[in-house]
Amino acid sequence: MQRVKLTIAYVGTSYLGWQVQPHPPTIQPLIQKALETTLRHRVALTGSGRTDAGVHAKGQTAHFDTPTEFDPKILRYSLNALLPSDIRILKVESVSNDFHARYSAVSKVYHYHLHLDPVIDPFVRHFRYHVQGRFDLDLLQKAAPFFIGTHDFSSFSNKNTRGSAAHDSIRTLFRLDCHEEKGGIRLEFEADGFLYKMVRNITGTLLDIAASRLEGEKIGEILQTKNRSLAGNAAPPQGLFLFEVKYLEKDAPGQGRTELVSPL
Amino acid sequence: MQRVKLTIAYVGTSYLGWQVQPHPPTIQPLIQKALETTLRHRVALTGSGRTDAGVHAKGQTAHFDTPTEFDPKILRYSLNALLPSDIRILKVESVSNDFHARYSAVSKVYHYHLHLDPVIDPFVRHFRYHVQGRFDLDLLQKAAPFFIGTHDFSSFSNKNTRGSAAHDSIRTLFRLDCHEEKGGIRLEFEADGFLYKMVRNITGTLLDIAASRLEGEKIGEILQTKNRSLAGNAAPPQGLFLFEVKYLEKDAPGQGRTELVSPL
Repeated sequence: MQRVKLTIAYVGTSYLGWQVQPHPPTIQPLIQKALETTLRHRVALTGSGRTDAGVHAKGQTAHFDTPTEFDPKILRYSLNALLPSDIRILKVESVSNDFHARYSAVSKVYHYHLHLDPVIDPFVRHFRYHVQGRFDLDLLQKAAPFFIGTHDFSSFSNKNTRGSAAHDSIRTLFRLDCHEEKGGIRLEFEADGFLYKMVRNITGTLLDIAASRLEGEKIGEILQTKNRSLAGNAAPPQGLFLFEVKYLEKDAPGQGRTELVSPL
Repeated sequence: MQRVKLTIAYVGTSYLGWQVQPHPPTIQPLIQKALETTLRHRVALTGSGRTDAGVHAKGQTAHFDTPTEFDPKILRYSLNALLPSDIRILKVESVSNDFHARYSAVSKVYHYHLHLDPVIDPFVRHFRYHVQGRFDLDLLQKAAPFFIGTHDFSSFSNKNTRGSAAHDSIRTLFRLDCHEEKGGIRLEFEADGFLYKMVRNITGTLLDIAASRLEGEKIGEILQTKNRSLAGNAAPPQGLFLFEVKYLEKDAPGQGRTELVSPL
């Protein structure tokens, strides 16, 4: 058996997410089916994690096992021929058998794009959140560092922990950078893992801060209370991209981001 | 009466073009209707020219007259609130009464985007033509200058001239530049005017040359024969953008391109 890693880009607009069963259309089953058609055997495709309805990916990863010999470029070509054009397999790589798309990941990078100009560019309307009303970039930039570090992020997750231990909600946010780009800004999040809706809830809270509806100094307090209702609403899905899933070089030797065209 | 100039961006994917009567959906009637709803009088909206089904615009222009006083920013806001999100009014400007969106134009700039990587970025799939098979950039770049200058472009137009005089097909192509961009190249065309499908027919011919199906030296000959059947097929609409319509400063004092976000 050979373990294979896929790197995948998709436009989330038309999908209910990576994997939401039993409601189609979702992305993971479409790729799994394309693999089964091509390889002619049943395939279990494991993603690095789920993405929500309407959320995009420029570097989602997944793995599966196959006893079939294959040429990576030909397999990529066959899969892309079978898949809808808003899902593209960017890379097909053979990896060691102990590689796991989810458990081998050392960090994940998400980008959230905020459009700040009065008129949104129609060509990116599905890929940015158009912020209207008060927005003080300085307030946002001063507040962002309060999220960095190891915290219990329960206040910023919509997931019910269902009685699981408190350390389940502890994550380490390595960085939360703010980059100016044409028409707006891009927030870059890198963490060892993210809770359900964590990026969108942090972004929504930062938008409250930028609009002076909340003080940035309150972030520490909100984190400590572990009370979801104190944080801001989730920012909408169309601005969010799963940008990259990082692994140790030994697990996925051929890794490195596949450069996509659009700077979204 | 005040003459007003509009600068407009649209994603052409869902439209049968700027103005194709009587078949909806087309863009010009939607903007005209939004103007009539906002200004509460009948409006005749004249564009700089038509764009075909599926062709995009980042800087289409149009003009109309109104007796109604208005604030340009509020009018822009109202129109964008009424229009579908794939059509955006970028600018509303008062201009002199002898300004004409079509006849005052001194040049038009079109961009055609060719994607050359084996896998197309799904986020730009509606905004580039994915070239597969042989493509020699060097051959294309050597051939492009043969199109520059004042020529009868009949061989590169699908329009039936219907017995009109030969000078009707004479246009001056000021430049045909080739710029590398991530994943492919962008062809920039600037001329005093373009015949029907001229940019797409020239692009299709350049693709034949890049694929070694046609020799670049034949371009002069093809122009001279005025025989459409000798040139290449039209490149598909999704790679084409009406990028800018240029006017003399006196006609449209506030002009200058409105920067859009995407570098498509």
